[in-house]
Amino acid sequence: MKILITGGAGFVGARLARTLLQRGTLDGRGISRIVLADQAQPPADLLNDARVEVRVGPLLAHCEGLRDEAVDGVFHLASAVSGECEADFDLGLRSNLDSTRALLDALRHRVNGGAAAAKLVFSSSVAVYGPDAAVAMPATVTDTTLPTPQTSYGIQKHICEHLVADYTRKGYIDGRSARLMTVTVRPGRPNGAASSFFSGIIREPLAGVESVCPVGLEVAHPVSSPQRTVEGLIAVYEASREAYGGRTALNLPALNVTVAQMLAALEEVAGPAVRALVRFERDERIAGIVANWPTAARADRAARLGLLPEANFADIIRQYIADSANTPGALAGLAGLAGQA
Amino acid sequence: MKILITGGAGFVGARLARTLLQRGTLDGRGISRIVLADQAQPPADLLNDARVEVRVGPLLAHCEGLRDEAVDGVFHLASAVSGECEADFDLGLRSNLDSTRALLDALRHRVNGGAAAAKLVFSSSVAVYGPDAAVAMPATVTDTTLPTPQTSYGIQKHICEHLVADYTRKGYIDGRSARLMTVTVRPGRPNGAASSFFSGIIREPLAGVESVCPVGLEVAHPVSSPQRTVEGLIAVYEASREAYGGRTALNLPALNVTVAQMLAALEEVAGPAVRALVRFERDERIAGIVANWPTAARADRAARLGLLPEANFADIIRQYIADSANTPGALAGLAGLAGQA
Repeated sequence: MKILITGGAGFVGARLARTLLQRGTLDGRGISRIVLADQAQPPADLLNDARVEVRVGPLLAHCEGLRDEAVDGVFHLASAVSGECEADFDLGLRSNLDSTRALLDALRHRVNGGAAAAKLVFSSSVAVYGPDAAVAMPATVTDTTLPTPQTSYGIQKHICEHLVADYTRKGYIDGRSARLMTVTVRPGRPNGAASSFFSGIIREPLAGVESVCPVGLEVAHPVSSPQRTVEGLIAVYEASREAYGGRTALNLPALNVTVAQMLAALEEVAGPAVRALVRFERDERIAGIVANWPTAARADRAARLGLLPEANFADIIRQYIADSANTPGALAGLAGLAGQA
Repeated sequence: MKILITGGAGFVGARLARTLLQRGTLDGRGISRIVLADQAQPPADLLNDARVEVRVGPLLAHCEGLRDEAVDGVFHLASAVSGECEADFDLGLRSNLDSTRALLDALRHRVNGGAAAAKLVFSSSVAVYGPDAAVAMPATVTDTTLPTPQTSYGIQKHICEHLVADYTRKGYIDGRSARLMTVTVRPGRPNGAASSFFSGIIREPLAGVESVCPVGLEVAHPVSSPQRTVEGLIAVYEASREAYGGRTALNLPALNVTVAQMLAALEEVAGPAVRALVRFERDERIAGIVANWPTAARADRAARLGLLPEANFADIIRQYIADSANTPGALAGLAGLAGQA
């Protein structure tokens, strides 16, 4: 079978691709080809896998060609992030809404030509939730909480959930939408997402670098590890429609933590000197965005699929450390600590 | 001030235009011009009013020109109806989603050029509500019920609500979305809407013509008269943002009635012979669509704006009879009754 991963060179997309290549099967079928569509080149290990095909460029430009291509399954992860969408309204509409629509229409075109409907998992986001004067947002959002997004990114994600639901109802795709929690710890550099610091306050200290936390210790947020996120996407893909349980989006599992708990876990895993590299300097813009996010999430439908969050944040940090063993400098803070000990 | 009414030649749009022309003011400002944009010509009385300007053609084709036009307020009513959208998926996306986006972008273009944001009322629909395996739809839907639309029409309306919310948050418009209940009694001919019979079973008998009711007496539904609907749209336009109370859509007032109650009211107003012109013949397609609609609605935010539904359905029928006094044949059933009496 042939799988398309949009955003396939990104952090979650590349990890998903590796996991699928390692499994060799999806949904009980052998994987012969994985197409990674992204604005950037994927990492070298993926480039070098004979089963991987790379398409670099904006998704919108690829969709015309997809209209006559036999793709069995799609993980649609490509997206402009929240900060970008707030800064450039047209970019958000084009990258998130227009591209999704073009992708769905390409898949529909195949069905209209007699092909079976492709399975599709759309990566939505916990960012669909927000407060509104008309509706009090609960302290813990659930699968059935009314989304009233407070960002263009959240609006666009939620709109695409509805498009996926309708294209599915019409039989043009077999679509499912999974709301990702904030994925942490992300490797590499800070990105344009307002949530970037949820990785930065762990990643930078582990690398021996100071990190600035733009919000207070009391800020609470639903997070997930990269591995649990990828497992969730695959499980949602493989679920029967009955097990998926509806046409609306479901939440992926969340570990609900405060910044204080994250830093306590950092100290537990890496010691007080690493923890001490986090400095607090309030950024009103980021703090304002984060204040409109849910402080916790529940994922009942995902739990019925057997999906659970990690037991604690220390395990998430340990996962990052294991993943970063071969990344030069990524664990320089730990090495320093070991040297001092 | 200059007002644009999209769908301005339609039943609700033309009535809104007449009401505004009669008032002469909106939001405390004098109305100098009303632009009616529609696929069809408006009725003659509107064509002949010097303050009215008519633009015939698809809305999408008008939006480019709107980018440099000073419009103070917009009532965006233009829409393909539910039956059309189910039959022609592309038509629905184009007429409902793409056209709304182009309209909003035209208004945004003006703001980017330094103009004040136009006020806009978007006519959404009770069709945003539907059942889903993941979420039990309550017997009575409210402003805060999670929409899980069961039709492309409902999906597109709900998507546009979110676009209106986001363009408003960004300051590109001062937008509000009002969910219309099923407007009855509509004059004229049946249309492609699955809800068409909610008018037909009253209108046809009053004209002395047999009407086929495709669903059972027990079917319950939230309806509104044309006049209350127009009053609702104007009140939502004139409300302050605080009084509107959020960025999400609100329900307009609903009179929750069963088909049995509608026909009892018909008998009360027009007599048993007129009532007897309604014949029951189940249409599985229509009954299936209607079975997925809410059976009642509550409109708490609208009530806080002072908006209430009619006291009973007989008053709605009397409104239709008064409106139809000059329409040849419209009340032929009543005339026959009078002749027999």
